[in-house]
Amino acid sequence: CLKQLPKGWRGAAVRALKWKGHFSALFNYKTEKYIVAKNKKVGVLYRLIQLSIIGYLIGWVFIKKKGYQETDESIQSSVITKVKGVSVTNTSESGVLLWGPEDYVVPPQGEACLFIITSFLETPNQRLGFCAESPKVLDGHCQHDSDCKEGRLVVAGNGVTSGQCLKKNTNSTGTCEIYGWCPIEKYFKPKGPQLKNAENFTIYIKNFVQFPKFSFSKSNVLETADGSYLKKCRYNEEINPYCPIFRLGDITKRAGYDFQDMATFGGSIGISIEWDCDLDKGYSHCHPKYHFVRLDINVSNNSISKGFNFRHTRYYKSTEGQSYRSLFKVYGVKFNIMVHGMVRIEVLTHLSASKATTLGTCLIVVRVQDVIVYVSLQGAFFCDMVLLYLIKKGTSYRERKFEGTWCGK
Amino acid sequence: CLKQLPKGWRGAAVRALKWKGHFSALFNYKTEKYIVAKNKKVGVLYRLIQLSIIGYLIGWVFIKKKGYQETDESIQSSVITKVKGVSVTNTSESGVLLWGPEDYVVPPQGEACLFIITSFLETPNQRLGFCAESPKVLDGHCQHDSDCKEGRLVVAGNGVTSGQCLKKNTNSTGTCEIYGWCPIEKYFKPKGPQLKNAENFTIYIKNFVQFPKFSFSKSNVLETADGSYLKKCRYNEEINPYCPIFRLGDITKRAGYDFQDMATFGGSIGISIEWDCDLDKGYSHCHPKYHFVRLDINVSNNSISKGFNFRHTRYYKSTEGQSYRSLFKVYGVKFNIMVHGMVRIEVLTHLSASKATTLGTCLIVVRVQDVIVYVSLQGAFFCDMVLLYLIKKGTSYRERKFEGTWCGK
Amino acid sequence: CLKQLPKGWRGAAVRALKWKGHFSALFNYKTEKYIVAKNKKVGVLYRLIQLSIIGYLIGWVFIKKKGYQETDESIQSSVITKVKGVSVTNTSESGVLLWGPEDYVVPPQGEACLFIITSFLETPNQRLGFCAESPKVLDGHCQHDSDCKEGRLVVAGNGVTSGQCLKKNTNSTGTCEIYGWCPIEKYFKPKGPQLKNAENFTIYIKNFVQFPKFSFSKSNVLETADGSYLKKCRYNEEINPYCPIFRLGDITKRAGYDFQDMATFGGSIGISIEWDCDLDKGYSHCHPKYHFVRLDINVSNNSISKGFNFRHTRYYKSTEGQSYRSLFKVYGVKFNIMVHGMVRIEVLTHLSASKATTLGTCLIVVRVQDVIVYVSLQGAFFCDMVLLYLIKKGTSYRERKFEGTWCGK
Repeated sequence: CLKQLPKGWRGAAVRALKWKGHFSALFNYKTEKYIVAKNKKVGVLYRLIQLSIIGYLIGWVFIKKKGYQETDESIQSSVITKVKGVSVTNTSESGVLLWGPEDYVVPPQGEACLFIITSFLETPNQRLGFCAESPKVLDGHCQHDSDCKEGRLVVAGNGVTSGQCLKKNTNSTGTCEIYGWCPIEKYFKPKGPQLKNAENFTIYIKNFVQFPKFSFSKSNVLETADGSYLKKCRYNEEINPYCPIFRLGDITKRAGYDFQDMATFGGSIGISIEWDCDLDKGYSHCHPKYHFVRLDINVSNNSISKGFNFRHTRYYKSTEGQSYRSLFKVYGVKFNIMVHGMVRIEVLTHLSASKATTLGTCLIVVRVQDVIVYVSLQGAFFCDMVLLYLIKKGTSYRERKFEGTWCGK
Repeated sequence: CLKQLPKGWRGAAVRALKWKGHFSALFNYKTEKYIVAKNKKVGVLYRLIQLSIIGYLIGWVFIKKKGYQETDESIQSSVITKVKGVSVTNTSESGVLLWGPEDYVVPPQGEACLFIITSFLETPNQRLGFCAESPKVLDGHCQHDSDCKEGRLVVAGNGVTSGQCLKKNTNSTGTCEIYGWCPIEKYFKPKGPQLKNAENFTIYIKNFVQFPKFSFSKSNVLETADGSYLKKCRYNEEINPYCPIFRLGDITKRAGYDFQDMATFGGSIGISIEWDCDLDKGYSHCHPKYHFVRLDINVSNNSISKGFNFRHTRYYKSTEGQSYRSLFKVYGVKFNIMVHGMVRIEVLTHLSASKATTLGTCLIVVRVQDVIVYVSLQGAFFCDMVLLYLIKKGTSYRERKFEGTWCGK
Repeated sequence: CLKQLPKGWRGAAVRALKWKGHFSALFNYKTEKYIVAKNKKVGVLYRLIQLSIIGYLIGWVFIKKKGYQETDESIQSSVITKVKGVSVTNTSESGVLLWGPEDYVVPPQGEACLFIITSFLETPNQRLGFCAESPKVLDGHCQHDSDCKEGRLVVAGNGVTSGQCLKKNTNSTGTCEIYGWCPIEKYFKPKGPQLKNAENFTIYIKNFVQFPKFSFSKSNVLETADGSYLKKCRYNEEINPYCPIFRLGDITKRAGYDFQDMATFGGSIGISIEWDCDLDKGYSHCHPKYHFVRLDINVSNNSISKGFNFRHTRYYKSTEGQSYRSLFKVYGVKFNIMVHGMVRIEVLTHLSASKATTLGTCLIVVRVQDVIVYVSLQGAFFCDMVLLYLIKKGTSYRERKFEGTWCGK
């Protein structure tokens, strides 16, 4: 009927119709075409595959991984330590000494990282003056005074050379005279820990944790009516797993090492406190787990890379105002306490409880949807394989699924 | 026409054709077949669903989550602290003492984790010798000298027994005589902080952060022309949120606790500095936020697990060379400064700026694609439901979508 | 034939048939219908796109990202440091002093975070008493005795006012007399590091790492038969990258700063140790990499926020039992050692090795599947575009792909 219109109108009408076509095509709904294979065997197979995938996913996501629970991993933690125990040492340099935690714990302020002295060498009454450099310092060896040019700092040594080479006799190798804290510390190789009963010392670890999202907080110290419980108990994984007081010897034993061995040259132990609480089970079922691991495994027997020691000093002043000091070289075991963990809570029953859980519900919905999509994809893949390649009438199915031989040439 | 060929040739030709078929099938292009449902209602519904999903996703991913921005979370941070304030104490043991930061901050070296002494008990002039064990130590109680076998280390005690049991009268329970640092520290339960004005002390927190990916660095110290600003200002969330100097009393108040209460038995406070900067808004709009939280919430009233104290010593030597010491039991508040954060930058305008952003652009493309896939899947699902189950002519649609009843039997 | 049945039976039979239909429909297998476009150009294009995507993904996921390897990022690390070197200082307050690591390293116990003193001001022989407040303390300025009310604690000052205003003459501004540790520390602006050769000091960093999943552990200390190697070697990225002994001057140089500049007012350096080991290449090929970065970049010239210093004290007692002390204001450089890293292992050859790797194999399967899905989606999208819009016979393809004009009206 467009032919009856005048020429100019006709073009406009055609264009209008074209636009109308485009516009109405905008509201067409395109959807994939399916074919239905009424093959009982394949149909049953398809459903079986779907069921097994659903079962597997429910088992995995919801029961094993507890996908219906929401977690909070933003742990806020505080660790306070307190060491108890005394030890007596008797050395030629220091005489009889009594060691309390205020002496052998470095630093003393009860931090999560602490060092416990097990062996020491005191060099008392050092004063600034002139003496021979230690023969252990390679750079301090000399043949002539010219090897000890005045004012030279001895590399890895103990002072500055005075210009003199001190020798026993003219032919031997001597050591430079230095200005430094004299006498020089003598050579010392520990033969065993001097604080012999250090393995009986105890660490009381107070750990407070908070999980702000669920406003949950707890301490590792067992709440008990028995006031003297904390005075007597000792941690033991089997008998007493909730006691926060640890014997040093037990810690190293759990880490797989002998305390006396570690104490001789020093070492480093990591204590990890792990919180993993299911809040649905109740507040009183939430307990931390402790793991112990040695951190400084000696891969080689190289003595220079072995053990852990450092030096510290105590300064004194004589009545004349002159400074003198005691130098302590100490060996010991370093303990490093690390806290990590999370809490979990069931989402659906706590729907109205907090804002946080609405997100949790969304996550469940998304997870369920993912499962459905995954299931139909996987099921279809296997069934297609069966229909196309295993069943005799495969070709007829193939012709139906992959339609006609259209050539775009 | 194959029939005209000789028998041997025929088979070869058939095989050749078969291979050719397989080979050309390799270059067939298989694509899903769609059907077009020209139903205006459903079409409009489809587009509406798509639009709403797109709108929601743009709103969520791009406006709320700022998906068009790239982030850098690899923060490099340095914290330096400096405490100011003095306090005077007057105790019978120590006399009048003036406390400056060099005394009450432990450790003194301005670290991110510091302890401020608020209460103390000095036991001056302890010397190694013999005296009675503290009656508080259960293991030191005795009835007879045999309870104090010579050389036994008292568990959780202060020394090694000499073999004598010291008693007031023959029937009372006594305590073993020990060799240790005498006199023994007396029992002390703080009645309130001795450094009474500790809540007026200030911490100056210098925090430098760097984000290497965008080579952005900033300090929390406000850059100002006013030289005396840092000498006078105090942090206040409302009035002065950019001042890096914090009054201790304000910190505990923000954490929800009273300083004097915490100071009596000691406690632990976490200060978190959070950087979250949108670099597109400009350098001067990037400021950290401070949060304060108490870390050692006392869940029980068990006194042994309450508060925070430790002991440290100062060693002296007499003119005769004998060691003596002062033992300090100190209570106080521990502050723990934690820094975390990230910076964000708009990706598209910074395309050519750095290598890092090319990855960012890829991410945007992938995100947009995800949105498209998700939109078409979701829209189709709802529309199919409508067409199949809600519309009267559903069966006709169903027949079209799910083609013929092919039986694979 | 249903018509022959009695009325009641007929309904039941119809219902039974309906149910049977529903039930058997449950075992129908619905699958998407495809059409095959036998267009060589498009087919070749399709395969090319697929091949290029597969190539890209194999290159990216498997070769660049090493997707066939499983990683362990749960690093357990221990750091021990030891500083060596001596320095001589000569100041009017302290005389000639020899500094060893036991003096200039704070804290001395060889931790991962250590401070090295490069400049200091000693205020020796401070005793509790009365003296004038420092003129630098604004709150200590006074005109009249009433400005120094007795017992007032001077804000950011050094003591408590005695009630007297000390002035040179009646008109000048004076400072309050205070009770505190006298004499007050004098004003000090370092002109350069006093421990001039501090840049020649060396840090020996012992780092042990463990990766529990693959039970792999290693130290950064090179295992060598040469016993004196560790006594002589110095870290150098090019010549000696495996030596764990670092010269301080080299560290700051690598971080991009001059040591003498940093040492004057103090600063902060981060040393990061990065382990990234491919265990398939062998144990001896696993070495850490070191990175150095300055953490306290001075963004402004504000002197109050510049550098790093703190005060510490040494307490003495006179023969009469009176305490006196030395106050040290020290400047220096803080070093912060951070360890991070991961190890990688090839999955397939280690299939039976551990439980962990079975998960790894699953991940590979999932990854390959993702690639396949992604490839077919992407390829189809491009080919459809070509067939629909670029090829002349597009309309015929369109009619085939988007079936008939079914109207749901």
